[in-house]
Amino acid sequence: MMQLIGATLSLVEPGVVEIKLPYRRDLTQQHGYLHAGVVTTIADTACGYAAYTLMPARSEVLSVEFKVNLLRPAKGDSLLARAEVIKAGKTLTVVRADVFALIENNRTLVATMQGTMICLAQ
Amino acid sequence: MMQLIGATLSLVEPGVVEIKLPYRRDLTQQHGYLHAGVVTTIADTACGYAAYTLMPARSEVLSVEFKVNLLRPAKGDSLLARAEVIKAGKTLTVVRADVFALIENNRTLVATMQGTMICLAQ
Amino acid sequence: MMQLIGATLSLVEPGVVEIKLPYRRDLTQQHGYLHAGVVTTIADTACGYAAYTLMPARSEVLSVEFKVNLLRPAKGDSLLARAEVIKAGKTLTVVRADVFALIENNRTLVATMQGTMICLAQ
Amino acid sequence: MMQLIGATLSLVEPGVVEIKLPYRRDLTQQHGYLHAGVVTTIADTACGYAAYTLMPARSEVLSVEFKVNLLRPAKGDSLLARAEVIKAGKTLTVVRADVFALIENNRTLVATMQGTMICLAQ
Repeated sequence: MMQLIGATLSLVEPGVVEIKLPYRRDLTQQHGYLHAGVVTTIADTACGYAAYTLMPARSEVLSVEFKVNLLRPAKGDSLLARAEVIKAGKTLTVVRADVFALIENNRTLVATMQGTMICLAQ
Repeated sequence: MMQLIGATLSLVEPGVVEIKLPYRRDLTQQHGYLHAGVVTTIADTACGYAAYTLMPARSEVLSVEFKVNLLRPAKGDSLLARAEVIKAGKTLTVVRADVFALIENNRTLVATMQGTMICLAQ
Repeated sequence: MMQLIGATLSLVEPGVVEIKLPYRRDLTQQHGYLHAGVVTTIADTACGYAAYTLMPARSEVLSVEFKVNLLRPAKGDSLLARAEVIKAGKTLTVVRADVFALIENNRTLVATMQGTMICLAQ
Repeated sequence: MMQLIGATLSLVEPGVVEIKLPYRRDLTQQHGYLHAGVVTTIADTACGYAAYTLMPARSEVLSVEFKVNLLRPAKGDSLLARAEVIKAGKTLTVVRADVFALIENNRTLVATMQGTMICLAQ
């Protein structure tokens, strides 16, 4: 799905992951803004990988739930989702992600996610 | 965005909207399940349109927030998101959507969304 | 806490629990409506017990997360929270609760919760 | 409700509000931890007042929805909820609250809320 929409990992650190997505017209909704589903896709993926950076080798990560507040229209040259782990647990990890719209050198917060990821041992 | 992922409106009634999405490999995540972002995209769109069916002509609808619980892996021949308005208001409308995976004639509930839509007068 | 606010279990079945709360002036917020925190307290407790009815003996239940939409002012002679399990899992159980305000024989939906409970083995 | 549970405003600044709640045994759930409903009550109230600090005179504030992740058992000498406005709008304001358990001089994050408040003009 990341390939389909053209999203790429731009930062991976323990407990922190960023994903970048250039604007494309086929990712928009009826007003020309990037679709809430696209915003959620990169936020959820960033949250999942941020949680995963703190999980043991050979485990797997799945999203349990997330909540997204859409704060402003998602328009710009690109989107950046930045996820940070709030609380890492053995089974459940709670993560927050902010999604910014980038226009030239300006960042605007367009959405924020709070979600739960689960660690599946293999 | 609906075109990009191949989703189509399959039912529109006052306060109820369904969206269908055939399985495609380029919509999956790392385990081969349909990505949570795709599940959310069709659920959010169904919620938005379900709210919109009850809004006055010439208004517009935007998503304020939503919360998704991912209940089971989203695998199947197709997904069906069914949204129903819980409470329509002048400004805010609360909507719920269930997302089912369809395999032959079986429906399995894979996710459920509870969200808020806003009516913008033009 | 249930004692402090005067809430009582009024129905317990496998996967379904109801909690009733008579109106009291010391449970209100600034407009005289029952406080969102009170609405949440009985909804969360109903969700926890509904999940618990499907868990093995000697396990314990804790709330992982919940989301509440407040639909209408919570005013009436009493509140009724009705929780139903949507998906029971070995570790996580997803539950929904509707909270109704009762005035004489009328029920009005005032809030709805979607949440996740965890089963802790003892 | 704030009186009933013994909560007090401890900080009010533009866009930021803190509420403090001393531990009391009648505010607990079955394991002796402070009830998720109590945690939510002070977080929601802090969010509402934080939003209210940025609203015009003679307006009123109501909670639209909130989502709470319960991160750790809420035990300690007292709880502190700190709410900060993320995005203030004319109609809707999005607020986040962290709830900490205080034991002597240590703060532990026990819950986090993300919610939406609405401004009602009078």
